[in-house]
Amino acid sequence: MSDVLNQLAEVLEARKGADPASSYVAKLYGKGLDAILKKVGEEATETVMAAKDGDPDKLVYEIADLWFHSLVLLAQQGLHPNAVLAELDRRFGQSGIAEKASRSG
Amino acid sequence: MSDVLNQLAEVLEARKGADPASSYVAKLYGKGLDAILKKVGEEATETVMAAKDGDPDKLVYEIADLWFHSLVLLAQQGLHPNAVLAELDRRFGQSGIAEKASRSG
Amino acid sequence: MSDVLNQLAEVLEARKGADPASSYVAKLYGKGLDAILKKVGEEATETVMAAKDGDPDKLVYEIADLWFHSLVLLAQQGLHPNAVLAELDRRFGQSGIAEKASRSG
Amino acid sequence: MSDVLNQLAEVLEARKGADPASSYVAKLYGKGLDAILKKVGEEATETVMAAKDGDPDKLVYEIADLWFHSLVLLAQQGLHPNAVLAELDRRFGQSGIAEKASRSG
Repeated sequence: MSDVLNQLAEVLEARKGADPASSYVAKLYGKGLDAILKKVGEEATETVMAAKDGDPDKLVYEIADLWFHSLVLLAQQGLHPNAVLAELDRRFGQSGIAEKASRSG
Repeated sequence: MSDVLNQLAEVLEARKGADPASSYVAKLYGKGLDAILKKVGEEATETVMAAKDGDPDKLVYEIADLWFHSLVLLAQQGLHPNAVLAELDRRFGQSGIAEKASRSG
Repeated sequence: MSDVLNQLAEVLEARKGADPASSYVAKLYGKGLDAILKKVGEEATETVMAAKDGDPDKLVYEIADLWFHSLVLLAQQGLHPNAVLAELDRRFGQSGIAEKASRSG
Repeated sequence: MSDVLNQLAEVLEARKGADPASSYVAKLYGKGLDAILKKVGEEATETVMAAKDGDPDKLVYEIADLWFHSLVLLAQQGLHPNAVLAELDRRFGQSGIAEKASRSG
C-alpha cells in the first residue's frame, strides 16, 4: 500500500499537460486553484458527515476523496506528497515521538 | 517516506488507552469524535487559506495537519489508513488508471 | 432591508411541497439534508476564498450564498430565522451587550 | 427581531478601535483576517455537525455563531450586512422571485 501516494503523484504530474477534456483531473487543473480548493473544502465537509453517520465504508471513501484532492492541490502547486509525509515524520515520527515524549514526560 | 502513515497509525493506536493529560492525541481522543471532526474542518479551512496565500511551506504544513487529523479520525473509528490507500489505489492506481483510460479513450 | 430574512423564510416554507423540478430550492429539498449541508460547507469555503482575494463584491455574494443555504437548512428542519436572530440578540443585542459590558468591566 | 443585524453591525463597528483585551470581538480584530476566517470555517463545520445530530437548539446556536462571525468578517472588511441582505433580496426577494417564476414557468 505504501507506494500508492508516490504512484498517484506521478499520475497527477503526468496529467498536467493533458487536454482538460481528457480526464477529471485534467479538467480540474484547467479550472485552476479555486476549483481545487473548493473540492478540498467539500470533501472535508463530506468526511465530517460520513463520520457523523457512523458509516465506516463511506468514511474511508470520503477521506480518500479528501486526500486525493489534497494531492491534486500539491501537484498543481508543484509540490510532492513526500514533503507532507516528511512534515508528519518530523512532528510525529520516530524523532518527533521521542521529542514529544521527553517534552510531556 | 512511504512508511510514515503506517508508523503514525501504530502510534495513534497505542495512544488510545493513554491518560488524556499525557499527549495532544490522548486529549483529543478524550474529547471524542466531535472534537476530532472540528479539527478536520479547521485544518481544511487552513489548507485553503495557505494555498490562497501562495505559501508552499505553510501549505505543506497545513496539509500535514489535515492528514494527521484524518489519521486520528480513522484510528478513533477503528480504521487503518491502508483502507484509504487501497481506495485510492482502486480508483486511481494501476488498475484504476487502466480502467479510466479505457473509459475515456 | 430588515424584512428580507422573513420574506425569504416564507418563500422557503412555501417551496417545501413543490415539485423538485420547479426550482433550485425545491430540488435541494428533494435531495435532502446532506445535500443542503454540503452546500453550507461549500459556501463557507467560498466565503474564505473571496475574503482572501480581497474582493468585496465577491465576499458579499458568497456570504449571501452562505446565509441563503443556512436559511434553507433552517426551513428544512422546521426552524425560523427569527430563532437565530433571537439567539444573536440574547448574546450580543441590547441585553447581551449590557451584560458583556458589565462583565468586562 | 428584524433590527438585530443592524444593531450588531453598529456594535461591531464600535468595537473596532477597542483594546484587544476588552472583548472577544476586539481580540478577534486584533488577530486579523485569518483568525476570523478560521472561525467562519469552524462554525460551518459545527453547523453541519449539529444538523447531523438532529438537535434543533444546537443547530440554531451554531447558525447564530456562523452568522455572527460572518458579521465580524463583514465589519473587518468595512462592509455592512445590508449589502448581504440586498444581494439576497435581489436574488430571492420580491423582484427576484418574480423573475425566477417567469424563468422557470
